[in-house]
Amino acid sequence: MSDAVGSELVMTRDAIREYWLGHRRLTRRVLELFPEDQLFTYRIGGMRPFGEMVLELLAMAAPMARGLATGQWGEYAQDGPHDKAALLRQWDEDTADIEAAWASMPAGRLVETLTAFGQWTARGYELLQYVVDNEVHHRGQGYMYLRALGIEPPPFWERS
Amino acid sequence: MSDAVGSELVMTRDAIREYWLGHRRLTRRVLELFPEDQLFTYRIGGMRPFGEMVLELLAMAAPMARGLATGQWGEYAQDGPHDKAALLRQWDEDTADIEAAWASMPAGRLVETLTAFGQWTARGYELLQYVVDNEVHHRGQGYMYLRALGIEPPPFWERS
Repeated sequence: MSDAVGSELVMTRDAIREYWLGHRRLTRRVLELFPEDQLFTYRIGGMRPFGEMVLELLAMAAPMARGLATGQWGEYAQDGPHDKAALLRQWDEDTADIEAAWASMPAGRLVETLTAFGQWTARGYELLQYVVDNEVHHRGQGYMYLRALGIEPPPFWERS
Repeated sequence: MSDAVGSELVMTRDAIREYWLGHRRLTRRVLELFPEDQLFTYRIGGMRPFGEMVLELLAMAAPMARGLATGQWGEYAQDGPHDKAALLRQWDEDTADIEAAWASMPAGRLVETLTAFGQWTARGYELLQYVVDNEVHHRGQGYMYLRALGIEPPPFWERS
């Protein structure tokens, strides 16, 4: 279906921003609940510890927002702090960066076809949706780590 | 930010449909890979087995599409088959139902504020996004179940 109804526009730039920031608030809560001494060691099925997943999320999120805003993409690089307090601090700094980048992002950027980090080509909103999907995916795994560690995860529907 | 730039429209109805169907294809692959004899028994951290999660996804997806299309909402009910072949069949039938419902959904429905299943009030696209987020969340847990069972999950980025 690519007719007039199918091309009806639905989601605004503001709605996408709120959606993203809501997910970030929830993911931050999962990180906050995670026991520090298990963050980079606890694994199930040979998967990465949750701290390594968080480093991936950090490597994608603010760099994606800055790339969308400026059209400048650095190398994709997954480094960052390996302790919980520093990860939470970086999470908050990156949220502020995302908000600033979003405010300066040119009109039309989210529907342009772009190449992020020199390797992923898609429309702006598709690149961003991938970042959020990846966050939801790994956060779901973080929920399972928490449960396996005997910790109740935060309610999935609570995003404020 | 609620200015002209913020209210710029970004995602079309067609794009949302393709996004959803892509996720459904990936989730179906996870179900297909899941060992039948573990589907309703294998648990980590006291979480539901993956088969129970799939029943929840089925309870939300096609009923959501039908509700969006018709404005008629049944009771939210999580029942369904408890064997893998029947679940896969229902998944495919529901995908066909979703496509049909989508094609008949009135213009503007995704931006209307609606009450789904008599209990969740939000804009149409927000209700739908919740359904997809919930699918990604539990599928991420399905990945962890597969890994813990020694099975390689499908690539996350492959949606075709």
